[in-house]
Formats: sequence, C-alpha cells, structure tokens
Amino acid sequence: MHSESMNCNGHEKTLSSGIIGIEVYFPQTVVSLKELEKFDGVSQGKYTIGLGQDNMSFCGDREDVISIAMTVLDSLVSKYGISYGDIGRLEVGTETIIDKSKSVKTALMQLFESCGNTEVEGLDTTNACYGGTQALFNTLYWLESPYWNGKYGVVVMADIAVYAPGPARPTGGCGAVALLLGKGKEVKLIPEVQLRATHMENTYDFFKPNLSSEYPTVDGAKTISCYLRALDTCYSRFIHRAEGLTKQDNFSLQDIDYIVFHAPFHKMVQKSFARLLFNDFKRDPENTFFKDVQQFGNISMEASYSDKDLEKAFVTLSKALYEEKCAPGTFLAKNIGNSYTASLYGNLACLINEKGNDLMNKRIVLFSYGSGLASSMFSLKVIQSVQPIAQKLDMRTRLSSRIWMNPEDFTKTLQLREQRYGQMDYSPSNSIDSLLPGTFYLEQVNSIGCRKYNRK
Amino acid sequence: MHSESMNCNGHEKTLSSGIIGIEVYFPQTVVSLKELEKFDGVSQGKYTIGLGQDNMSFCGDREDVISIAMTVLDSLVSKYGISYGDIGRLEVGTETIIDKSKSVKTALMQLFESCGNTEVEGLDTTNACYGGTQALFNTLYWLESPYWNGKYGVVVMADIAVYAPGPARPTGGCGAVALLLGKGKEVKLIPEVQLRATHMENTYDFFKPNLSSEYPTVDGAKTISCYLRALDTCYSRFIHRAEGLTKQDNFSLQDIDYIVFHAPFHKMVQKSFARLLFNDFKRDPENTFFKDVQQFGNISMEASYSDKDLEKAFVTLSKALYEEKCAPGTFLAKNIGNSYTASLYGNLACLINEKGNDLMNKRIVLFSYGSGLASSMFSLKVIQSVQPIAQKLDMRTRLSSRIWMNPEDFTKTLQLREQRYGQMDYSPSNSIDSLLPGTFYLEQVNSIGCRKYNRK
Repeated sequence: MHSESMNCNGHEKTLSSGIIGIEVYFPQTVVSLKELEKFDGVSQGKYTIGLGQDNMSFCGDREDVISIAMTVLDSLVSKYGISYGDIGRLEVGTETIIDKSKSVKTALMQLFESCGNTEVEGLDTTNACYGGTQALFNTLYWLESPYWNGKYGVVVMADIAVYAPGPARPTGGCGAVALLLGKGKEVKLIPEVQLRATHMENTYDFFKPNLSSEYPTVDGAKTISCYLRALDTCYSRFIHRAEGLTKQDNFSLQDIDYIVFHAPFHKMVQKSFARLLFNDFKRDPENTFFKDVQQFGNISMEASYSDKDLEKAFVTLSKALYEEKCAPGTFLAKNIGNSYTASLYGNLACLINEKGNDLMNKRIVLFSYGSGLASSMFSLKVIQSVQPIAQKLDMRTRLSSRIWMNPEDFTKTLQLREQRYGQMDYSPSNSIDSLLPGTFYLEQVNSIGCRKYNRK
Repeated sequence: MHSESMNCNGHEKTLSSGIIGIEVYFPQTVVSLKELEKFDGVSQGKYTIGLGQDNMSFCGDREDVISIAMTVLDSLVSKYGISYGDIGRLEVGTETIIDKSKSVKTALMQLFESCGNTEVEGLDTTNACYGGTQALFNTLYWLESPYWNGKYGVVVMADIAVYAPGPARPTGGCGAVALLLGKGKEVKLIPEVQLRATHMENTYDFFKPNLSSEYPTVDGAKTISCYLRALDTCYSRFIHRAEGLTKQDNFSLQDIDYIVFHAPFHKMVQKSFARLLFNDFKRDPENTFFKDVQQFGNISMEASYSDKDLEKAFVTLSKALYEEKCAPGTFLAKNIGNSYTASLYGNLACLINEKGNDLMNKRIVLFSYGSGLASSMFSLKVIQSVQPIAQKLDMRTRLSSRIWMNPEDFTKTLQLREQRYGQMDYSPSNSIDSLLPGTFYLEQVNSIGCRKYNRK
C-alpha cells in the first residue's frame, strides 16, 4: 500500500490523487557562467564553483510570465493529449508579478476560449519560490474532497529571476513547469499523506518591496541561514511523522530513495543535502557512519549554520549518498539557473528524465522553500512507470539545442528588460527568430497596460 | 439534510466543514459621501443616489494591508477564545499588494510566535476582489480531505481601496474580514456542495499594471458589463445544479432565502439583484409575476446589458423581493465602501448581524466577483444559530462610534498615502489617537523596506 489515511469511518483509505504528467519550459537563450565570470572580471570559478552553476536561461522583451506560463500549459495539454475542456482547476504559483490585481491565471483563460470551458477554478498563489507548492497542495485537497468535479487539476509554476548587476545577478534564471493532476489509474506519483511537514515564519531574507523594479531585495547570508533553519525544522517534523508511519525509531536519509530541493543555486543543494546528514548525526551520533565527524558532536544548532569546517566535513561525508540520491535531479537547475516557483518541480522533472523506470516504487522527498518565509518537506511515491513522462520531457536534447548568447548580449537584454519594466504603449523590439515554433510571445502592450500575445 | 455528496463507496455523506465564526474590521476614520459631493463640486446625489453609497472608510499612513489583517485576525482569535496553536491553515485573500514576493500571510506569522506554532499552511491568493473566495474554497477542500490535520482553518480578506482623484474615488473603502473554519459540532454555516458555479475569463476591466501607484486602472462601464455577464453565467450554471439537487424544474430567486453580492458600490447590488430576476423572467416568461415586463421578452442578452429601461423595470419589479432577501446584507458596504476581497464576506457578516436567529435553516447564496476576471455563485445553509456570531460582530455600535473626518482631511490623508507609497526609511506621521485599543499599526519602514508593527 503506497499511502494511507483514515476515512470518515476510521478505516484505512488509499489516496488516489496525484501527478499524471509534467512539462517543463525554458527560454531558448542561454549564457555560460564561465564566460560571465570573465566578462564580469571576477575570479575564475566564482560562479561555476562558488555557486556551482553552469549556465543561465534568460529571455528578452518577447517573453514575460504570462507568455511562458501559456507556453508550458499548452505544451502539457498537447503532449498529454487532453483538451482544455477536461481541466476543472488551474492554479498558478509565481512571484514574477506584473500586475497587482489581475492574476496570470485569468490571462491563461484565453487558451480555454476555443473549447468554451470557462468553469475553471483557481487563481495565483504567492510567496516567493513556495507559491507552486501551496498551489499543488490546494489542488490535491480539491481532488480528494467531495467538491471535486471529476476533471483534471493543473498547476503552473512560472518565473523569470533577474537581479541587479552585482554578485546576485549570476543566480538568476528562467523556467516554467506545468503539473497535470488527477485521480485513479492515470496517476504515476502519489503523495504519502502523513509524510508532510511545514514551517512558516515572518522574515525579510529576500523580498520585493520596490514595486517599480523587477529586481528583488536580497540579504544573501540571511536567506541561506533561513533556508537551512527551515530545512532543519521541516526535516525534524518529517522524521517524527515518518517514524510514526513506518513504526521505526531511526528513520534517516537512508530511508529516502531520492531527494529534490528548491535550488536557488547548485551549491545550496549540496549544502542542504549535507545538512540533512548533520541532522541524522545529531540524532544518531554513535552510528559508525559518523565516525569521522565526531568533533561536531557538541556544536550548538545556532553555531552550526555558519561553521565552515562542519559544512565541509558533512559535504565530504555525504558525497556518495549525494551522488546516488540527489545529483540526478540537479542538472536542469545547473543549466537554467533559479526558476523560483518552478525550480523544485523542474528538479523533480529532471530526476524523472534521468532515472525513468528506476524510480518505480521509490520514495522521492521534496523540500520547498520560499523566502519570507514558507517551507515544506513532503514525499511522493512512484506507483507506476514514469518513463512516459521522461520521454515527453526529453530534457537533454532540448537543453543542448539552445542558443548560446555572449555576456554582452545577455547584459544588453537585461538592460532592455529594465527599460521595459512598467512601460506601456510599446511593441517589443526583440526578434522572435530565437523562439521555438509553438512558443507564445508578447505582441503589444497598449497605452493602459493591456497585454496582447501571439504564437509562433 | 443540509448538504450531501457521495463518499468513496458511493453512499451519501453529509459535509461537516464550514464557517464557525466571522470577524470584521474597518478603520475608525470615515467620510460622508454627501459632504464629499459638495467638496468635489459634483451634483447633489451623484455619489449618494448615483452610487447608492452613504459613507466611506479610509486610513492614513498608520495602517496598511498587513496591520488591518493582523487586527482582524487577532480580534477573531480573541473573540472566539481560540489559541494561535489551534490554527492549522491560514490563507489571505488580498489585492492590496505592497510586496511582490513576500506574502501578507508570512507577516501574520508574527502573531503565532508566542505560542510557537509555525506549522501553518496557506499563502496569499490573488485576483482582484475574488481572492478571498478561492482562499475559502481551498480551506474547505483541506478540511474535507485526508490531509486535514485536525486544526482550524482561517481565511483573512483585507483590502484598502483607493482611487486617483476623479469619478472613481468615491467608490473606495477599506475593510478586513476573518473567517474561522472547522469541522463538526461548532459549524454554523455549511456549504451546499453541489450548489456552486464558477466562471473565469481573460478581461482587462479593472487591473493594476502601474506597480508604482496604489491606484488601479479602471474601465467602469466595462467592469459593470463584465460583472453582469459573469453573474448571468454563474446563475445559469447554479440554477441548472439547483434543479438537479432539488429535483424541480423551476428553481428561481424564490428558492433562495437570502443573497449577498460583492459590492463595488451599492447601486451595483440593486442592479445585480434585478438582473437575477431578469434571468428568471427569460426562463419563465409566462409567470404572472412578470406580467408588467413582457415588452422585454425578445431582447437579446447582449443588448440587455445596456438597456436602461429594462434595468429600471426590473429594479422596480424586484423591490419587495430585494428588501426581503438582499437589503439586510447591504448596510456595512454602504457605510464603509468597497473593501474588495473583504466586501462579500463583510456583507455576509452584515446579514448575520441584522437577521441573527431568523437565518436558522435558511439558504444564503453568495456571488463573488473579481475583475480580470473570476466569479462564483455558491450557497451556504445555516445549520445552527448564528446569534453568537451576530453578538460578537455588534456592527451597528461599532459603525456609529467611528470618527467623522471632513473631505479636506480625507483628501489630505490620501495625498499622504500617495507620498508614502513605495517610500522607505520613514516613520508614519499620522497620530495613533484615532485607533481603537488593540489595533495594530505601522511603526516604521526601514531603509530597505522591512516593516515593523506595534499594537495600541
């Protein structure tokens, strides 16, 4: 039995709602971080080794959060052979806000027009990179509730991450993910209902109070410690529930087959994986696996966040486990950068792309983090072959066929985005040549800010 | 039986999740629209008769969307004698965006600190005035799903509606509502699960593309026709389902005991009620109730939206029904103005405040509209006395004890808000004298935009 809960009569009930399909979109234009290091005049390896990133996706003034959300949604619908009439709920997670009132979701309703389906619940859900996770949870509740209308639920995560010139700029990126959710025989990944832990608090580690700029306000060191503290809290709650569920008292990373993280930059994922092992060590210090890190036995949790020796020791100790359980889900984010709400689910797609049938009956744990802050750790069990999803994703081919831009053009493109932000009454000036056939793009923004799209 | 759905075994199941309590907050400062008419030099009655509004709530630079959300949430928790530790989910509906990434929900987490409860799901949900309705639906799904953790769900709707000087300014307002949701014996209002209809489409009738201003972009005529078209569509779907549920073929307004609308301004509520009667007429033209409006039998739906004679005839015909079914839920909005996401639920609170025990076993239908656009019509059945809610609301006393400001001071206050919008590194200059004890207020915005609050 993959997942249980009690129903109204106190009997065990098998959950039947989960993920049927996943589609990923990233722009065709990409810049190499190695080249950007040279261009920015920073030390070699600062971005590629320091951040652990290889390349970064970006887009010009032809694509915005609405167009990339339309592209990924339409691609999902087409690849999975469903109709817009089959969708009963569509929720969007994003922090790329271009209107304070009108949701991206309502803009997506233009795709439903031709089939006349206007009864599609769901809006936009916002808190930094976590919005998509809450949207996913809400959709699962809907599917499992008596309010479900028998149709599919779709969750779209879409973000364009751009930063002011400076040290944060290479942590940008762009991507969109669409999840197809439903019930019954089609479901391939199903949540383990008891294996979910959440932690939320009021922080100002990364936020966007400057409404007239596309750039966030970032306290890099604070956001890293917030991320790790949230990870600790969620893992501790997750472990507690996992031990209750599995009736064992030493649940650890070993009981998790694969783990995917929200990835602001790749180095953070390595740190996070090592941090989980540090948590396991604190709970089971006598375990021989930890014989080489005994010197960290008495460190306080507070001090542990900034102890570089500790971090290094656990990154080293976790290497083999990391390669096995985490690395397969990281190459997308390393190659497109941070895609905010889409990041975690892009990494899940990446894991599926890489491992395919090997994931059968495996437990995949996801850690979602959104600054401000909201975080959850939860588990998905693979109950049916995900090979059909992997085939449709075809990620490596798509990544390798992108168009390489040089750092000068990347910088000019970001300057153009800066100029366009909040602008009205214009037609975008970037060519649509670089867009793949089928991509939606911005055609015009009129004098009061209404946006018109077209499709290549 | 108040509400049914099928459970997993195909047997009828009674829903047990619904509304336990409601709290409303509005600022202490208020301006008379009669006085504003004189001050603005417009014809007498333009705001009071033309819009049907009496007074408008507003706030200075001491209150923002976070502070009013904190005030209403804390007041709900205190009046209903619950602890922050008892809340498992908190979702915010708002379109008063002061940060594009950090949610209002995470700011509310500061109230949970003292009891150490950080496991509180839910974020902000956005699409104009509809955000609170989706937040409510999401919370009901959670309560009815196997993911429910046994705790209360709370939905907070909070908005400050301000407009640029001109014809839209008198349609402003300010208010916040908190709904306490749960399961079982405490529930007083319960949804009728089958009686819900939704309509969403891509429109630009009212939106906020100018991110550096607090003011929206409004196409007044378009938003009225969008509202009425959405109302028609939802009502038609609602009727279809109601006829299925009640096994009758002539379900109409007569089968609805009370109805509350999202109220951008009071005249719109009267128009909307009359519009439902027009829909009933189109479905049952031979009914003798409609003998005086037979001349509108052949009008097209398209033409009907702008036909003033039709509107007048149906407003007249609906007068008695309106007084009985709709008027009791309208005096709050007439006295505080448009509170966007809070409007519909403030009107529900108002109906409860006015009718108390008379609502026992009655069907209340709600129509929610958010520009852009999202809309739903759904039904709540009163299954237990709502008199305790009415007593806690004590709305008339609270409304009558407000502080009357003159139009000059109102205008100066809005100028101050304009100046503050997006500003950083300041302490608000308005006195806190006018705030009631217990009200949260903004203490400081630092140089990077972090907000600090205090409590009177």
